[in-house]
Amino acid sequence: PMTWRGSRPSFAVHRVEDIVCVLRCSVPKLKRSVLGFLPVLSWLPRYSLRDNALGDLTSGISVGIMHLPQGMAYALLASVPPVFGLYTSFYPVLVYFIFGTSRHISIGTFAVISIMIGSVTEKLAPDSNFPSLNETNGTGGVDLAARDAYRVQIAASTTVLCGLFQILLGMMRFGFVVTYLSEPLVRGYMTGAATHVVASQLKYVFGIDPARFSGPLSQVYLLIDICRLLPETNIGALVVSLVALVVLITVKELNTCYEKKLPMPIPIELIVIIAATLISYYGDLNSQYNVSVVGEIPQGLKPPSPPDISLWGSVVGDAFAVAIVGYAINISLGKTFGLKHGYKVDSNQELVALGLSNTAGGFFQCYAVTSSLSRSLIQESTGGKTQVAGVISSVIVLVTVLQLGTLFEELPKAVLACIVFVNLKGMFRQFLDIPALWKSNKVDLMVWLVTLVCTVLLNLDIGLAASIAFSLLTVIFRSQLPRYSILGRVPGTELYLDTDTYEEVKEIPGVIIFRSSTTMYYTNAELYLDALLEKSGIDIGKLLMKKKKKDSEQKRADKKEEKRAKIKAKNQVKHITLCSTGSDQDSEIGSYGDNHITQAASTGSESESGKSADNSTHTIILDLSTASFVDTVTVKILKNIFRDYKEIGIDVYLAGCQVCVVEQLSIAGFFCESIPKSCLFATVHDAVLHSLRVHGDKDRPQYECVLDMSSTTKM
Amino acid sequence: PMTWRGSRPSFAVHRVEDIVCVLRCSVPKLKRSVLGFLPVLSWLPRYSLRDNALGDLTSGISVGIMHLPQGMAYALLASVPPVFGLYTSFYPVLVYFIFGTSRHISIGTFAVISIMIGSVTEKLAPDSNFPSLNETNGTGGVDLAARDAYRVQIAASTTVLCGLFQILLGMMRFGFVVTYLSEPLVRGYMTGAATHVVASQLKYVFGIDPARFSGPLSQVYLLIDICRLLPETNIGALVVSLVALVVLITVKELNTCYEKKLPMPIPIELIVIIAATLISYYGDLNSQYNVSVVGEIPQGLKPPSPPDISLWGSVVGDAFAVAIVGYAINISLGKTFGLKHGYKVDSNQELVALGLSNTAGGFFQCYAVTSSLSRSLIQESTGGKTQVAGVISSVIVLVTVLQLGTLFEELPKAVLACIVFVNLKGMFRQFLDIPALWKSNKVDLMVWLVTLVCTVLLNLDIGLAASIAFSLLTVIFRSQLPRYSILGRVPGTELYLDTDTYEEVKEIPGVIIFRSSTTMYYTNAELYLDALLEKSGIDIGKLLMKKKKKDSEQKRADKKEEKRAKIKAKNQVKHITLCSTGSDQDSEIGSYGDNHITQAASTGSESESGKSADNSTHTIILDLSTASFVDTVTVKILKNIFRDYKEIGIDVYLAGCQVCVVEQLSIAGFFCESIPKSCLFATVHDAVLHSLRVHGDKDRPQYECVLDMSSTTKM
Repeated sequence: PMTWRGSRPSFAVHRVEDIVCVLRCSVPKLKRSVLGFLPVLSWLPRYSLRDNALGDLTSGISVGIMHLPQGMAYALLASVPPVFGLYTSFYPVLVYFIFGTSRHISIGTFAVISIMIGSVTEKLAPDSNFPSLNETNGTGGVDLAARDAYRVQIAASTTVLCGLFQILLGMMRFGFVVTYLSEPLVRGYMTGAATHVVASQLKYVFGIDPARFSGPLSQVYLLIDICRLLPETNIGALVVSLVALVVLITVKELNTCYEKKLPMPIPIELIVIIAATLISYYGDLNSQYNVSVVGEIPQGLKPPSPPDISLWGSVVGDAFAVAIVGYAINISLGKTFGLKHGYKVDSNQELVALGLSNTAGGFFQCYAVTSSLSRSLIQESTGGKTQVAGVISSVIVLVTVLQLGTLFEELPKAVLACIVFVNLKGMFRQFLDIPALWKSNKVDLMVWLVTLVCTVLLNLDIGLAASIAFSLLTVIFRSQLPRYSILGRVPGTELYLDTDTYEEVKEIPGVIIFRSSTTMYYTNAELYLDALLEKSGIDIGKLLMKKKKKDSEQKRADKKEEKRAKIKAKNQVKHITLCSTGSDQDSEIGSYGDNHITQAASTGSESESGKSADNSTHTIILDLSTASFVDTVTVKILKNIFRDYKEIGIDVYLAGCQVCVVEQLSIAGFFCESIPKSCLFATVHDAVLHSLRVHGDKDRPQYECVLDMSSTTKM
Repeated sequence: PMTWRGSRPSFAVHRVEDIVCVLRCSVPKLKRSVLGFLPVLSWLPRYSLRDNALGDLTSGISVGIMHLPQGMAYALLASVPPVFGLYTSFYPVLVYFIFGTSRHISIGTFAVISIMIGSVTEKLAPDSNFPSLNETNGTGGVDLAARDAYRVQIAASTTVLCGLFQILLGMMRFGFVVTYLSEPLVRGYMTGAATHVVASQLKYVFGIDPARFSGPLSQVYLLIDICRLLPETNIGALVVSLVALVVLITVKELNTCYEKKLPMPIPIELIVIIAATLISYYGDLNSQYNVSVVGEIPQGLKPPSPPDISLWGSVVGDAFAVAIVGYAINISLGKTFGLKHGYKVDSNQELVALGLSNTAGGFFQCYAVTSSLSRSLIQESTGGKTQVAGVISSVIVLVTVLQLGTLFEELPKAVLACIVFVNLKGMFRQFLDIPALWKSNKVDLMVWLVTLVCTVLLNLDIGLAASIAFSLLTVIFRSQLPRYSILGRVPGTELYLDTDTYEEVKEIPGVIIFRSSTTMYYTNAELYLDALLEKSGIDIGKLLMKKKKKDSEQKRADKKEEKRAKIKAKNQVKHITLCSTGSDQDSEIGSYGDNHITQAASTGSESESGKSADNSTHTIILDLSTASFVDTVTVKILKNIFRDYKEIGIDVYLAGCQVCVVEQLSIAGFFCESIPKSCLFATVHDAVLHSLRVHGDKDRPQYECVLDMSSTTKM
């Protein structure tokens, strides 16, 4: 059967074409989503050795050299043994290499995140929980090994949970949450965190052992305790610290001064560490002067182990805070570099990449990571072009962990504390934000200060929450104190501006144009109404009462009239014609006016009474161009405005509403018989023209004349 | 000395005149402030017996009759003996008479406030704290007298603190705080509170004794406990309740049906109370059927006693919540009546009045008051004109307390619970808000529902705080999802509207006009930037990279050229003229364009490359008319936009900024050499005209022509 044979292939062809078409459409989609999830595939195959290799190598080595001291020093902040800081500088970097979208940031340990993890480990595993079983280690009865093992477990579990939060947020495309952390907030928070870092490291500098505190105000208690213990300062530790500090600061300053002349900054931190280790080893500082040293560093890597899920219940809040703060730092740095070098940093993919780095890291006893400002700047400035630099830096860390780690066992902890201190310089320089913000934006200064105070006093988790809440409240406050203004026309244009600010603008006689500087919603709706009443100078309550009285008097009069008329009708009195002529004349004028009032026809006669009372205002135009949404309260207030002003014979028009506002008004059932859609005007000028067409020609025949004589109402 | 004599009196006269003038100015001020603080002085002297006396008398008697059952019933909610509910219906009314500005509201006990006070008293004075000393009272070992005395003490102290809060807020003119309680929130809260009221009264209906719970979810636990105890129901109490409920509901429905025909509603609550008391007395329900009755009611008034200040520490949160909620209910009712009857209700004075009522009441063992919707409606509808009605109602309460109180000792508590139930009808009818809000405003519906759930689950204090926080967050959310749009011109006008919504509008070729529907601030600034990039279709990153590459290539080429030129200069090759002519021509066209680019003069040559890449867009106009303030983040983003677009040769203009926005931009140091104030335009149209003047005449000589051919860019 030919027909069948003939039709089949064509059908098949169609289907194949369809499939091809579908494939053509879906393959790029699939490809895009795979590349989106694994950005490494999009750039590594196209990696140009010629262009990038040298830069990445130099940069990788420089960053690797920074990773070593920072990793060990920040591990102290996290209250875990220094080697875990090195692990943290290794595994997550590799994961980020695969999933990250920023080419210049250096993932790894960071002071603020480390101190946040430290507050968790110290809270859940205080010294007092680990009474020593054998008195030989001589540390006042604390089983250091068990304590540190448990602390590592806590840090790793928190990190896994934090990573899972980040992955989840990234999957749900919740990258935008970071926008709640405005710049003043982040900077204030960093500065606050830096004070925590300093407070936590002072004990190493002075070689003392203050009590641990947790909860609000713990930093204050800690500082008090440190002051109390100052007489017990270990002179050896203090001397080591002072020497290290002086050397570090001096050489760092030199680095900054000769930035342009040096091919790469002097790795003074590494030099200090090596020198200090040597001095400590040969001077036997630990046993001679009781200077606390890093202690045993296990050689080689550890096998992965699952996190302790039972801990998650007690660390969930901290893990979430770490997730958010870590991401915030990461994305702000990433976006900065992205903008500078012209590539796109995908905020949701960054969240996933950071989450995977943390989750994977957590299985290998790492603690939470983010990008570090100091390292990222070095990575970029020494010529790093891609994340290959990160891999090279992690190789250096790996070599150290595998081969050289044990050499650092005699390193005094005080030196690590000093390295932490000098790295905080940038954060403390943020105090200069205060005068800058004082000049530029006082509200943001307040956010900065409140964040600092909250962070210092309430600690890093609750402090962050409180700061975000305050920061959001400032938005509310700002919209709660709008500037209300009466608009007037700029002569010769269709432009209507604030009469208070611009002297040349002229109010349109009989028309009040009212605008709020911000959107009207429930917290300022009442204010809007009050301001309208005040600015328009129309005492609506009084007018309404007057009208009511008049109405009832009129009714009474009508009744009397009726009665009298009945009597008169009986008596056939002659002078009726006289008085009726008078009232007829009145009503004629009224109806003449009415013909021109197309919209407020029913209230035409009341209009007259309203006018006579209030400088002949006949129209109120509400310029709603600043409104971005409407809520129930706004609809109600607007309805009341329409109802009340109509009652005293004043037309109300809305002008300049955005499309979404009109839609929301419609949905809310705002438009009805008494408020037709025809009271909406695209611009204030349209509304004014309409109003003058309706009312104007009665009082003043010429429209042009009206607009030029407009100052008369101001009397 | 004549001169001295002559001058002295005139000086004196001057001074007298000054003083008179000052007095003239200050006396009305003083008078106004005295009248403002004591509103009674402004209306009582002008009280017209003829107009008001009859209405006030009827209304006062009706309200007084309602006060009696409500006072006793709500006292059970507050967990104090019924007589204190009567006190609460007496003292505060008198104080409010003097200080209040609303003429129609009925101050006194109210279900929601009562249950809030009840939660405090039960939390601080649980049964378990009062083991019975003598077993004769047979109530399972609870010393009721001591417990109740302490509970009254707690309620009174909380009330005094709450009153002080209100006075303080009123003095500081903080009446606006109530605006944070939007209508959907208040209605959701009331409904949530009503469920608490029901849950707390069920025990009286069933005659059971469930355990007390406090803290979050306590209502759930309570309901579970009640269900567990249902088998132990006291049949006597249940029968009494059912009978009372049926009678109350039937007669109330009849009242509603025949509202117009009845001169005043049948006081069925009072009738039920009297009937129930008689039945209970003669049927001896208490001892025969173990039906719990009101018990001893002390005769006469009690002397005032100071509050127990030591309690304030533990009730401060609750007192504040009571202060805010009480005021919110009061002011919303007051404003409603004020608007209806055309008088002004001063929100701050109301706060002071309510605060004084509470403070004074607290000294006389009253608990917190506010206006009750049901009583206020009766007060108004039965003809009440002024607060004299309130005084009359309190006289009725006084007579009851002094003479008739003891008669109610045999009244079953179940009857009072039923009275509470039927009074909640209005609150439960608020569930009808759900379909109404679903239709009109989904965000407000969410606020309603979240408030209800928070109130039900988290109790009345934390629930209120959580609801307010959520309600504020909705404002943030709303401004976080703005509608971004590209504007086009309505042909023949100066109006620029959204191109997506209005088909007739036409984009101006080469000009992108961009607007956000809401103010830009830190939470949506990034979105703004992203939307601008997306909507404008200009990939700025790519263009910047291209430009950089071009620049470096240019440099390299220049260098090569230089080298070659040197070689060529040596070799004196002839064909240089040929190629240089070509490039000269190019640069000539470039400089021709430059002459017309007045503002972006320095970037003129780059402008060409930008244009060729992106459909010849030469200007971006940001319509900032919806912005109501700017923060640091916004300034930064705007600066970046200016910098980046300038770099690729696109001019950026700002249009329609409000005065305050321009001010804030200036203060923030936004305007500088590269961003002159001349890039600000009053309207979009001005900016478009300027842009076309600068760029337009090169491509298309006629401006009118451009505006009519404007659809060409859409290709």
